[in-house]
Amino acid sequence: VGIIGLGLMGGSLALALRPYCRSICGHDIDSRVIDQALDRGLIDQPIELSGDQVDVLILAAPVIAILDWLDRSPSMFGGEFHVIDLGSTKAQIVAAMRQLPERISPLGGHPMCGKETSGLGAADPDLYRRCLFVLAPLDRTQPATLTLAQDMIAAIGARSLLLDADRHDRLAAAISHVPYLTSLALVDATLRANDDVAWAMAASGFRDSTRLAASDVTMMLDILTSNRAAILESLVRVQSSLHDLIQLVDGNDVTALRDKLIVLQERRRNL
Amino acid sequence: VGIIGLGLMGGSLALALRPYCRSICGHDIDSRVIDQALDRGLIDQPIELSGDQVDVLILAAPVIAILDWLDRSPSMFGGEFHVIDLGSTKAQIVAAMRQLPERISPLGGHPMCGKETSGLGAADPDLYRRCLFVLAPLDRTQPATLTLAQDMIAAIGARSLLLDADRHDRLAAAISHVPYLTSLALVDATLRANDDVAWAMAASGFRDSTRLAASDVTMMLDILTSNRAAILESLVRVQSSLHDLIQLVDGNDVTALRDKLIVLQERRRNL
Repeated sequence: VGIIGLGLMGGSLALALRPYCRSICGHDIDSRVIDQALDRGLIDQPIELSGDQVDVLILAAPVIAILDWLDRSPSMFGGEFHVIDLGSTKAQIVAAMRQLPERISPLGGHPMCGKETSGLGAADPDLYRRCLFVLAPLDRTQPATLTLAQDMIAAIGARSLLLDADRHDRLAAAISHVPYLTSLALVDATLRANDDVAWAMAASGFRDSTRLAASDVTMMLDILTSNRAAILESLVRVQSSLHDLIQLVDGNDVTALRDKLIVLQERRRNL
Repeated sequence: VGIIGLGLMGGSLALALRPYCRSICGHDIDSRVIDQALDRGLIDQPIELSGDQVDVLILAAPVIAILDWLDRSPSMFGGEFHVIDLGSTKAQIVAAMRQLPERISPLGGHPMCGKETSGLGAADPDLYRRCLFVLAPLDRTQPATLTLAQDMIAAIGARSLLLDADRHDRLAAAISHVPYLTSLALVDATLRANDDVAWAMAASGFRDSTRLAASDVTMMLDILTSNRAAILESLVRVQSSLHDLIQLVDGNDVTALRDKLIVLQERRRNL
């Protein structure tokens, strides 16, 4: 198994897959991270980037970097192999996977887990436990690749769900990318309020509501640019929901407001 | 000490104050909660609601209920005493406190802590540890009342901060009440997206971003109605911040977007 990108996701995957693999090799744009991964025993060796042989290539990088690796991998890795990515958006990646030579069997993937912290230092073999791992197969994905991915997902304690790439991206916009933007807007608006006591007063409610604003910037920037259309569409729905709530608050119809709050409280509590 | 309202806040305060009080009496609109508080030894006895003597009366209820208790307390409790409230908004409560007879020394308060769960069952003697406890003194607040409140706050492990009621309400709108509304809007918009897979895909990011939507409805309803003006003003700032972010995403100026994300990430990480 070759893992490209030894940050939180790739590093955690290396740790979780360790007991099941004959050999794990890895690569990172930061050569010090490769050294750390070797020191900690996460990988057996660095990937040789010219002519190396891998059975499974896992791309665990931000979306734009994954697109770049998909472009370069045919000239880097010989023979037949599976390629699975862990990118946060799927439509552009799956489109790029369609261009791969036939000897490579591609499969889109996105584990729905994460942490406020990023990087190899935060890697955790239990990161994937009980997480939902979305798989977005292509028409050309070989059955053996799908089976292998599902076995891998079971081995690391996650659950797999097959989803069309476009549907994944629409849903990820609603439950992840737009919450990132509202989280940023809350921090930005609090900065604009221009009263430093606000930060001292911020308790767990503000911390939780804005946790996503602390996400890795490169990862999020790639998400915002590669899933722009779905995000803007989903954002319109949130703005409309917010507008309706404001109308209820402003309109002083306490009964209607209470009914709405109860429905949304119920829905959130059932999560 | 008499505590009105034996939910999460009042119950936790009773537990935390236990070692420091000669006697704690309590009241709740739900008589079964009073029985539970007696059974668990949180209070020594129920408050007698006609002519009982208290040294300190603590109002730990939703805002509208606190306003009601302030109205009724002079006819219920004889002699001189301090009254301190734990309400989520301060302007209306402090205004009502101004109307109390002179034998009662009032002080507005708001501990900036909470939990997703509410009720006596969630009461925790450590709830107030390291929390910021805002005090909003009135001109007529006696120095002894302020000293007593500060001693109490130190005893339960919290830190006190003196703030004008209006400033408290503006800041609370920014860091708590508006995040509640955005949290509701995220849940509402996901319901409108009308694809149940969204809920299965929702991971820690969505959970955190929407945690406030699960807050106690009566408490939040009172906040929304008693702090309407500050909330609407703060919401305008959030909508404007969101609009600016959308422009950056839509405008494809990756450098400007990255710079903005880095500033907000930094600010959130320094929280």
